[in-house]
Amino acid sequence: MLPEEALVSAIAAAVGGPSGNVVLGIGDDAAVLDDGTVISTDILVEGVHFDLARTAPREVGHRAATANLSDLAAFGLPDGFAGAAEIAAGMREHGVPVAGGDLSRAPVLIVSVTALGRCERPVRRSGGRPGDVLVVTGPLGGQAAAGYTGRVLPRTGEGCALASVATAMIDLSDGIATDAARLARASGTGAIIELERLPRASGASIEQAATGGEDYELLAALPPDADPPVPVTVVGRLTDGADVVLLDAAGAPQSLRGWDHFG
Amino acid sequence: MLPEEALVSAIAAAVGGPSGNVVLGIGDDAAVLDDGTVISTDILVEGVHFDLARTAPREVGHRAATANLSDLAAFGLPDGFAGAAEIAAGMREHGVPVAGGDLSRAPVLIVSVTALGRCERPVRRSGGRPGDVLVVTGPLGGQAAAGYTGRVLPRTGEGCALASVATAMIDLSDGIATDAARLARASGTGAIIELERLPRASGASIEQAATGGEDYELLAALPPDADPPVPVTVVGRLTDGADVVLLDAAGAPQSLRGWDHFG
Repeated sequence: MLPEEALVSAIAAAVGGPSGNVVLGIGDDAAVLDDGTVISTDILVEGVHFDLARTAPREVGHRAATANLSDLAAFGLPDGFAGAAEIAAGMREHGVPVAGGDLSRAPVLIVSVTALGRCERPVRRSGGRPGDVLVVTGPLGGQAAAGYTGRVLPRTGEGCALASVATAMIDLSDGIATDAARLARASGTGAIIELERLPRASGASIEQAATGGEDYELLAALPPDADPPVPVTVVGRLTDGADVVLLDAAGAPQSLRGWDHFG
Repeated sequence: MLPEEALVSAIAAAVGGPSGNVVLGIGDDAAVLDDGTVISTDILVEGVHFDLARTAPREVGHRAATANLSDLAAFGLPDGFAGAAEIAAGMREHGVPVAGGDLSRAPVLIVSVTALGRCERPVRRSGGRPGDVLVVTGPLGGQAAAGYTGRVLPRTGEGCALASVATAMIDLSDGIATDAARLARASGTGAIIELERLPRASGASIEQAATGGEDYELLAALPPDADPPVPVTVVGRLTDGADVVLLDAAGAPQSLRGWDHFG
């Protein structure tokens, strides 16, 4: 067995056989669902698959799509890394099927995951209106306070429930200071966040609650008269301005910013 | 506008608005299809999203899935790289909708693409039987001969046509010497490839045709009496042995091996 095949076998063993609506999982070029949906994923890494000095960005894009149109979690693995099957096992612990995939060598460990789901009514970032109240589903800043270690769970149940009443929604992956600005900008509104209203995770400062990433709680805009179907905390509102303002307990604007990958 | 938002806007402009069966494309946390399918993708990079010295592989997997269960092309961009929108434009040239996505900083450029499609009957790697003939859809070794530059197109039409008769199929991304072994092993068979029968791309040696990667021609196993619906070249057959043998013009076995990411 080739080394790559052995690695695929170990990953397939870690996630188990096809389950749920997955009829074809790991080991072929694509995953297949019971409704005929085919999903494939590929990862291209500079220095492994292409040389930027010789390949224009447009050609990198064309090539990446060719590789794919011709696997769902893609791994870039540094030399000597032995934990790929454990990574897959960690994904499997969410109780959802894990299928498909791609493997590549890479200078550092890279994990690229694609998820599929179904919705009746997508709630976008852009549906918020001035006057909507801004609510969050749980305490913030926990990951920042913990140094970004320990497990976090996705709020899929809360998201499904809020979808029935929310005008706009976003998950708090980069901190509410950044993510509220994204929601407001997409909605064409301003926003006011009252910092002392932010529910804080154990050990988190106000700044960590406002700017810490990877909490994955949900921020939703709700009409003022909406009756939230799950427990939420009101933290502010959308305005007819263009600015996103973070107010301290004295009502003074604070300059805080969440995570921006390219800031 | 935050730097990351500006980059998302440039990418969205490069690929155009939602088209085909995509109702929600770039700019929200997920893409949505007209049948309610929701797709999201996220990329996690060592040194950016986690520190392997402090995070066990299983926790990396759990975290990657949380990020996602809470986008379809995901980019890891090195500092100063300005070609992300061009990469997206290159993908768009395939004439398929490009939707969703994720951005991250990374030590080198990383492009991770997920594709969705529909099939009536999935043809796996594992359906081949001893006696099936092995066919390829076009010339091989072209990318190896060209130094892995220039464009390659996916054989989606040929794949759909061959699906009506093939017992097993795989795309030739890592060279027929490697990919035929994958198909045979998955099918529980051996295989014989006659090297002089391999259709060679312009300028390609027999060795390049046998071991070169990224051609994306298709290798299919067909019942001996099958009538291929598209032009193909017979290059060998599946056997009831366990070995994959590459024979030269004199019938002598040659030791050639294609690409293995971890070989």
